[in-house]
Amino acid sequence: MMISSFHPPERTLMGPGPSDVSPRVLAALARPTIGHLDPEFIRMMDEIKQLLQYAFNTQNELTMPVSAPGSAGMEACFVNLVEPGDKVIVCQNGVFGGRMAENVRRFGGEVILVEDEWGQPVDLNKVESAFKANNGVKALAFVHAETSTGVRSDAAALAKLARDNGALTIMDAVTSLGGIEVDLDGWGIDAVYSGTQKCLSAPPGISPVSFSERAVAQVRDRQSTVPSWFLDKNLVMGYWGEGTKRAYHHTAPVNALYALHESLLMLKQEGLEQAWARHDHYHQALKAGLEAMGLSLLVDEAYRLPQLNTVTIPDGVDEARVRSRLLSQYSLEIGAGLGALAGKVWRIGLMGHGCNSRNVLLCLGALESALIAEGVKLESGAATAAAAAVMA
Amino acid sequence: MMISSFHPPERTLMGPGPSDVSPRVLAALARPTIGHLDPEFIRMMDEIKQLLQYAFNTQNELTMPVSAPGSAGMEACFVNLVEPGDKVIVCQNGVFGGRMAENVRRFGGEVILVEDEWGQPVDLNKVESAFKANNGVKALAFVHAETSTGVRSDAAALAKLARDNGALTIMDAVTSLGGIEVDLDGWGIDAVYSGTQKCLSAPPGISPVSFSERAVAQVRDRQSTVPSWFLDKNLVMGYWGEGTKRAYHHTAPVNALYALHESLLMLKQEGLEQAWARHDHYHQALKAGLEAMGLSLLVDEAYRLPQLNTVTIPDGVDEARVRSRLLSQYSLEIGAGLGALAGKVWRIGLMGHGCNSRNVLLCLGALESALIAEGVKLESGAATAAAAAVMA
Repeated sequence: MMISSFHPPERTLMGPGPSDVSPRVLAALARPTIGHLDPEFIRMMDEIKQLLQYAFNTQNELTMPVSAPGSAGMEACFVNLVEPGDKVIVCQNGVFGGRMAENVRRFGGEVILVEDEWGQPVDLNKVESAFKANNGVKALAFVHAETSTGVRSDAAALAKLARDNGALTIMDAVTSLGGIEVDLDGWGIDAVYSGTQKCLSAPPGISPVSFSERAVAQVRDRQSTVPSWFLDKNLVMGYWGEGTKRAYHHTAPVNALYALHESLLMLKQEGLEQAWARHDHYHQALKAGLEAMGLSLLVDEAYRLPQLNTVTIPDGVDEARVRSRLLSQYSLEIGAGLGALAGKVWRIGLMGHGCNSRNVLLCLGALESALIAEGVKLESGAATAAAAAVMA
Repeated sequence: MMISSFHPPERTLMGPGPSDVSPRVLAALARPTIGHLDPEFIRMMDEIKQLLQYAFNTQNELTMPVSAPGSAGMEACFVNLVEPGDKVIVCQNGVFGGRMAENVRRFGGEVILVEDEWGQPVDLNKVESAFKANNGVKALAFVHAETSTGVRSDAAALAKLARDNGALTIMDAVTSLGGIEVDLDGWGIDAVYSGTQKCLSAPPGISPVSFSERAVAQVRDRQSTVPSWFLDKNLVMGYWGEGTKRAYHHTAPVNALYALHESLLMLKQEGLEQAWARHDHYHQALKAGLEAMGLSLLVDEAYRLPQLNTVTIPDGVDEARVRSRLLSQYSLEIGAGLGALAGKVWRIGLMGHGCNSRNVLLCLGALESALIAEGVKLESGAATAAAAAVMA
């Protein structure tokens, strides 16, 4: 066993996440570890909560980071809110809707699946029909920004449908938070989970969640015990609740929370609206460049995510070889297609700290050179010129 | 909301964990984030696996870090191995045995509780009787090193009892790994979980686990679906398995794994036996100093943990005020008692990177001064002199 210290290559991360982490956040991550019950740490926890309330636009008391990645944040929502026999309408228009359905099943819930094509948003009419066809639906679950396809669904309208039918709303905001508008209280979302490694640009490993009072009441009044000790919100709130006395539940991931605090502070300092506008701006530049190369985006403009660009792979191009070339020649990571879109698209992220003019130009220049190497006829330099014109 | 970047105070961490993190590990933590499917990252994952196999002394193929704290590692063991109706003997001689029992119940298992006093090891005779009194016991679960009391139980003998009775062994090695001998393959342990923030001295947030072939077979042959998507070992192994092709399961906590890699490498470079000897050596020095102050250790020498020293609080001393004084005057954290021992003991950790001569002297000097402030009659300087004599 010949092992030495690991020195990662310096990458530019333009896949579906993790995104490039700012030096400010990496510096915060490396500050000395202190105890998870230290008064100074508890003060920082309170600030994280306030910053998350700002980012989610909510007054929800139960707003906190789950000490594990987004998939565990998803599980935290479903394991607390779904009891055996509960009916849940799950909208599936990509990988993560499917994972939600799997969660509901594992906790004994009955899934009412509403399927849409990958690349399309959730169809409101289908959801309305599902509510009409089924009595006593406990919750509606959907993905706000599908990381596997680059599609935004209409969260406000979906939440209204749920409320009109007396159901809770559970929303995946992993890729949307910080990149496009998320308005928990305005829309009336009852439970949401996100991730740190997308538009917040902190390292992966933590999942911010928020539960409305209605959702908290449901957890409190459950008939059955939550089939998880680690994720049981009734217990976790003893540590993440109010006041200076906190009950030990589990040892918080201290340094990862330093990083989250710093990344949320950066978002606050920039301002949410400014961050959303920045994502839109560089998306427009990237799009102009991609189109100048003759590439097209899979998703219609009306519901396209600026932070996750799904690019159709041209005929005759070996997509894996292109990604491999970008990685080896330019140390640039872009994402492959996932699930039904594997082999059909690339996923180019413009997320958080990585959503900037340098990354747009690098990506276009590198992709152009890789496509030329694949034999695609291109006017060299046209893509970066088109993007630069948008950014000028 | 007036929030600025968080700059933690510089503490010396001598509580029950997290322990002081080495600058080498903090530097690793802050290296640039790369993708969780990057070939270089996958190479590092393989190294982590080898280093964990070394630390646990096992050839187990399923040896990997769970992407969440020790409590989630505990849950990973129980949620995969316990099915509804399974009988599990759980040994409780502190907080964490109780948490194990809670896990078994939440997954529908039947708990056969073997209780011992807090401060005592698990009684082998009671466990033997429990096996005699119950047919078809699926597993025996116990805590190797009880962080709440500072007691080591006889893991080898307990695992033999389980094997002789055809049961699996599930062991908590959160506080033992890296501080005292852990010998999975020699003892025949089937499932184990640990934590990064004790004797490995990486930041909290990750839980190394290992499953024997026998345990893996049980997971594969389950009658019911694992009631967790995030922790389902059948799925996780697609990402942490063999080869260069890895199936995406969840986004790994990239930077936290850099830190774990470095801390395991440090343990390998020192050597396991040397690390255990170091823990014993500084424990002897601390003990000499505590006894010179007239303080006594709760736990008998025969089964006392060197890395977690449970000190009985002298009559008339306000234990919380002492801890508070250590924190404010010396920026030194020691631990309070937990559960049945709350208010009765302090817990002084000498773990991993924090197990050194400087910390021994600091702790004794600071504690002496705090006790004098509480009105305890002490010969000032005696404690540090006694410890220094051991370390000379």
